[in-house]
Amino acid sequence: MSASDLLVQKYGGSSVANVERIGAVATRIAADRAAGKSVVAVVSAMGDTTDDLLALASQVTGGVLPSAREQDALLATGEIQSAALLAMALQARGVEAVSLSGAQAGISADGTFGKGRIAAIEPKRVREEVAAGRVVIVAGFQGVSGTETTTLGRGGSDTSAVALAAALGADRCQIFTDVTGVYTADPRVVTDARQLQVIGYEEMLELANQGAQVMQTRAVELGWVNGVTIEVLSSFVDQPGTQIKEDRQVEQRNKVRGLAADTKVAKVTMVAVPDRPGIAKSVFDPLATANINVDMIVQNVSHDGTTDLSFTCGRSDLAAARPVLEKIQNEIGARALEIDESVAKISIVGAGIQNAPGYAARMFGTLADAKVNIQMISTSEIRITCIVAQADADRALKALHDTFDLATPDPVDAAARDAESRA
Amino acid sequence: MSASDLLVQKYGGSSVANVERIGAVATRIAADRAAGKSVVAVVSAMGDTTDDLLALASQVTGGVLPSAREQDALLATGEIQSAALLAMALQARGVEAVSLSGAQAGISADGTFGKGRIAAIEPKRVREEVAAGRVVIVAGFQGVSGTETTTLGRGGSDTSAVALAAALGADRCQIFTDVTGVYTADPRVVTDARQLQVIGYEEMLELANQGAQVMQTRAVELGWVNGVTIEVLSSFVDQPGTQIKEDRQVEQRNKVRGLAADTKVAKVTMVAVPDRPGIAKSVFDPLATANINVDMIVQNVSHDGTTDLSFTCGRSDLAAARPVLEKIQNEIGARALEIDESVAKISIVGAGIQNAPGYAARMFGTLADAKVNIQMISTSEIRITCIVAQADADRALKALHDTFDLATPDPVDAAARDAESRA
Repeated sequence: MSASDLLVQKYGGSSVANVERIGAVATRIAADRAAGKSVVAVVSAMGDTTDDLLALASQVTGGVLPSAREQDALLATGEIQSAALLAMALQARGVEAVSLSGAQAGISADGTFGKGRIAAIEPKRVREEVAAGRVVIVAGFQGVSGTETTTLGRGGSDTSAVALAAALGADRCQIFTDVTGVYTADPRVVTDARQLQVIGYEEMLELANQGAQVMQTRAVELGWVNGVTIEVLSSFVDQPGTQIKEDRQVEQRNKVRGLAADTKVAKVTMVAVPDRPGIAKSVFDPLATANINVDMIVQNVSHDGTTDLSFTCGRSDLAAARPVLEKIQNEIGARALEIDESVAKISIVGAGIQNAPGYAARMFGTLADAKVNIQMISTSEIRITCIVAQADADRALKALHDTFDLATPDPVDAAARDAESRA
Repeated sequence: MSASDLLVQKYGGSSVANVERIGAVATRIAADRAAGKSVVAVVSAMGDTTDDLLALASQVTGGVLPSAREQDALLATGEIQSAALLAMALQARGVEAVSLSGAQAGISADGTFGKGRIAAIEPKRVREEVAAGRVVIVAGFQGVSGTETTTLGRGGSDTSAVALAAALGADRCQIFTDVTGVYTADPRVVTDARQLQVIGYEEMLELANQGAQVMQTRAVELGWVNGVTIEVLSSFVDQPGTQIKEDRQVEQRNKVRGLAADTKVAKVTMVAVPDRPGIAKSVFDPLATANINVDMIVQNVSHDGTTDLSFTCGRSDLAAARPVLEKIQNEIGARALEIDESVAKISIVGAGIQNAPGYAARMFGTLADAKVNIQMISTSEIRITCIVAQADADRALKALHDTFDLATPDPVDAAARDAESRA
């Protein structure tokens, strides 16, 4: 079997949310089989199953946080159920199929309950079932460590799918979801946002990290490292999606590819921190210990022997972060602790834009014209990010989408479309 | 740890039907722990979970029977969920606990999907967890065959629990259910039915086989073979239950212990079957092949070279049995096929009653006095069963309960109660 005859697919929770949708997925897979493809499909739990199980757990413990091990044992059942149901739906359509748990599919995790990482995949059983002519449905979001079931953390099904594609030597992994692909900006905010036909791994990573919630970043990284082309496409609409792959035209292109907005951000500032070696460590070590994911960090030049140290974190982490921060403030003698829960992170992303002149200036100018105040700035090789007031986020996005002319199809997408239609 | 310090318990679906009941079970187990006991608890799926999952499966396949393998993969998740939730509820009460799947608990099944039998139990992990001071919650109703999850069939959780008790060397297995114990007759029908304090394994088997739906017969057999005392008791009411154990007072007792009624029975008669060797085989072989469980078989002496062959089966099997029976009728040249879907099976059960004179006569006389017509009779060592019209079943039960004086506590129960209160 050639790599291109094997399709590795992933269906998210909304794609298998109910009996009708499971049926639609089965019909789609049956069509792929009829077209001579072998199919390995990774599934998430049906719709709200995971949230429902978490709610049950919370009720049973009276709100006490359940042990991560038991929570994993509980949650992993959701994907096993949807996998078995999809296999049954295929069988009812006359397509031979078998469902496998993460353990049965040979997915080993590193043993960290609740946020395991895939340690290895030995897909012997998957290969055997494929060779026997069966569609293999794999329960996503889970692996096994010894005999212990471990979940891969939210969105882990994407990772399961891409890792399986790599282990099976498939050249493509299709991620079916409830959007039709990756857009230049959130189409709910920017009405003329355009779907991209192709985007580079690194660009996708930056978009995802900055708030575009299409794909798990770990899955994109895995695809990048293993050279697996990832296609994001809709399970409801039959049309080409967005391909995430090595993008060899970067040098020629050198322009903004997309915008990202993360509106679930909080900004924390330690005011007038003594400017001496080790001070950053004494702030960020305790936060890391408390499992608070710190995102952007900005420290400006000092004056009067003190400096302001600012960072952003997820708004949902704030409740856990606040007591830690107050303790730190006392210990290092910062003058004040300022927390702003209503900021947003706006980014322009495009390979090469940091090296090309003018992008930062055009971004700042556009925001100024739109009367959006910039509170913090951070840049990477392929991204420029500004923290702004949350109330300004949509206005900022629309203005930037116009400035960088994102509604107009670019030559890269046209080339990709041509290549696709020739294939 | 002595055998009597280890409690093996089983909680059925109604005992863990919702968050409140799981909490109540956790509180009960916590009390056992506080009293110095080690606890291994086997749980069924919450309330209607299994039926809900079966309904989902049926919808997904459009009514096509799903493969037994996939159905097992699906159903086994129900017990894993309830086990994890109960472990969490214990942890929230400060009791160390761990949930184990059937595979993790070392329960091997024979690989027949949907109705597996326990092949072996290697409870190494269970022992380790108990030794580490943890309450072990085991997902019932499931085992593993190689890497394949196999369910033990309906009611298999009872079997899991008794088999675990035997493998762990516990001298008692407590079956918590929604009744307070085993009764002399169904208390919903016979108002002065009395709870038994003790009943022999064989008597319990006959009662269960004849329709008293308190316990799985396989579990009783396992307890008998392994000398594990089984205690049936209520998870809602805190009072002593019924002990199923070797009953050494049988010789002295020699009386009716309980009545059973099965009202889900159909009676089939092949009229005027040629009376020649091999005829029974040609009737019952095809039925066995079609997986129809035939219960009582009665063939009377022949006249005119033909005989009537009657048997009973579960009413739910009738739809599948009918075409098979019609084919058989044609093949063997029986004159007619009579099917009566409204009969009931009424039994008196008690060790030794078959050898003692007068029980059969008293039963038949009682039914005659109550104007209940006897359609078929069958006996075993410790049981006499009559098939009657379903409409007569309750009247028959009440009359028999009076005749055999079952409302009056007998000396065996009094002795058991005394022994219990001294313990």
